[in-house]
Amino acid sequence: MSDLPKHVHIHEEGPREGIQIEKRNLAVSDKVRFIETIAETGVKQIDCVSFMNPKRVPNMADADEVAKAIRKRDDVRYTGLWLNTRGLERALALPLDVVGSIRMTASETFSVKNTNKTIAQTEAEQRSWMEIYRDNDIALEWGYVMTAFGCSFEGEVPVENVLKMVETILNIGTEYGQPLKGIYLADTVGFATPLDIETRIGAVRERWPDLKIGLHLHDTRGTGMANVYAALRMGVDQFDSSVAGLGGCPFAEHKGAAGNVCSEDIVFMCHEMDIETGIDLEALIECARMAEDLFGHELPGKVMHAGSLQRFRQVA
Amino acid sequence: MSDLPKHVHIHEEGPREGIQIEKRNLAVSDKVRFIETIAETGVKQIDCVSFMNPKRVPNMADADEVAKAIRKRDDVRYTGLWLNTRGLERALALPLDVVGSIRMTASETFSVKNTNKTIAQTEAEQRSWMEIYRDNDIALEWGYVMTAFGCSFEGEVPVENVLKMVETILNIGTEYGQPLKGIYLADTVGFATPLDIETRIGAVRERWPDLKIGLHLHDTRGTGMANVYAALRMGVDQFDSSVAGLGGCPFAEHKGAAGNVCSEDIVFMCHEMDIETGIDLEALIECARMAEDLFGHELPGKVMHAGSLQRFRQVA
Repeated sequence: MSDLPKHVHIHEEGPREGIQIEKRNLAVSDKVRFIETIAETGVKQIDCVSFMNPKRVPNMADADEVAKAIRKRDDVRYTGLWLNTRGLERALALPLDVVGSIRMTASETFSVKNTNKTIAQTEAEQRSWMEIYRDNDIALEWGYVMTAFGCSFEGEVPVENVLKMVETILNIGTEYGQPLKGIYLADTVGFATPLDIETRIGAVRERWPDLKIGLHLHDTRGTGMANVYAALRMGVDQFDSSVAGLGGCPFAEHKGAAGNVCSEDIVFMCHEMDIETGIDLEALIECARMAEDLFGHELPGKVMHAGSLQRFRQVA
Repeated sequence: MSDLPKHVHIHEEGPREGIQIEKRNLAVSDKVRFIETIAETGVKQIDCVSFMNPKRVPNMADADEVAKAIRKRDDVRYTGLWLNTRGLERALALPLDVVGSIRMTASETFSVKNTNKTIAQTEAEQRSWMEIYRDNDIALEWGYVMTAFGCSFEGEVPVENVLKMVETILNIGTEYGQPLKGIYLADTVGFATPLDIETRIGAVRERWPDLKIGLHLHDTRGTGMANVYAALRMGVDQFDSSVAGLGGCPFAEHKGAAGNVCSEDIVFMCHEMDIETGIDLEALIECARMAEDLFGHELPGKVMHAGSLQRFRQVA
């Protein structure tokens, strides 16, 4: 167990991933309240909105309004997701924390379906983002490899393709004199097993031993938390996750239990294994329950329904 | 990854754990159909009924009828659960596979609430079961330590108490000249994390290095599949689980997501990691979907909603 990290960093994706895919759209005031409540739990980065075509993702049509209305804490970063240059420009015009990132997809078909661009076109666009970052004094932070564990159109995504995407991302950073903080491998459509986590992180580390790795996981087929644990064993300390297990990719072509790994379940598991997160678990559980109220149906998170173990310790 | 087993054995608990706790009681014919369908998937042992006080568990009032009605396959064992001598006698009178077992609870309070007997009284009763097994030519197979990872009344259950229960069980077996096949550690109320799995299995193995270990896990707080994976890494190849994640202990004093770890999610994860189970995953997924139809609400299993990865491989 020696490689378990001492501290795990959670990037909260629930407001963005959840609102994006849920049937019920929320009022701007509810979106803002949800984000502000999460910001009180100790989470240090919250993905609040995405900049998508409102015809494809109507629930995000009010992204600008939401971004403007949030009362922000100084110690929390409020981010947004863009997948094209227009989205990045929208983000820059708003009171959001624009985090310099490079986003490639390992599957050609998924790239086209999700962003309407081939891998080659995406690579070219990333360079234009780098120029925008430079012009706006934005530091490059993370590179993302989407569909790094499989693709719901192409099926298997060879490890070599993932390594190639990592290399492309690192090269773009180098080209612009901007070193990356690390690379996120995203299991966008929920194909990964713990063995895949070990194999793919292992392959990346073999080639770039010092590269920091983050994971963006979906619990589509029940392996989400096992994958988190497999990654923790390898010392991974950076995860995207969603309160209540909200989320799912709207373009992934499957329905059902497609949400992100659940933030408070991860926090629970970490705390119980003496891994710090800096997050108040009970407060985060309340956010998950708020999400159920807001969206009006049961959500897949577990510890939000059963409660943490705190009360048993208070009795003892 | 070298300790991953080559083959994992699943004891299916869904019909018993599910029917026991679900609000909607099923017709005998539906219970039987559910069991018979599971028996076609390659699962080799199915817990079909429990012998409980019908006042406490009304859905099992027809246990005898169900046990008699099942059309049985020769290569499947159809078992029942008893927690007292009267239940064992009912099981013996029925066309069921009575599996010789010893059942102790590591938490005194839980023992009393679940079976109305202290640990000492339970130990005495196990001896009377051993005599019944002897008189009926039934081989002793597994010992079970319930609440081996924590108790929803007492909170923490010290490792020493678990070891003591294992010792008690092994001694009873020895006393009657009946060696045990192994010991099941049951996370009856869903307290375990992967670290607990490693610590507690480690502690048992340190003392009894050759003892086979099985796990009965509940995914109460989101760690279920991570716990399965932690156990697989330690070579554990024997799990209780429920199709669709049905189940939960009716006396555990918590509501919410308290079901067993989900059979088809485990089978999916195993197959994807090249671990055999002898089970037809697609057929088991159909059983999980049947469970949703029968009980009339969504169940927590994941792969049953998203589908396996088979179809992506057929495309490729």
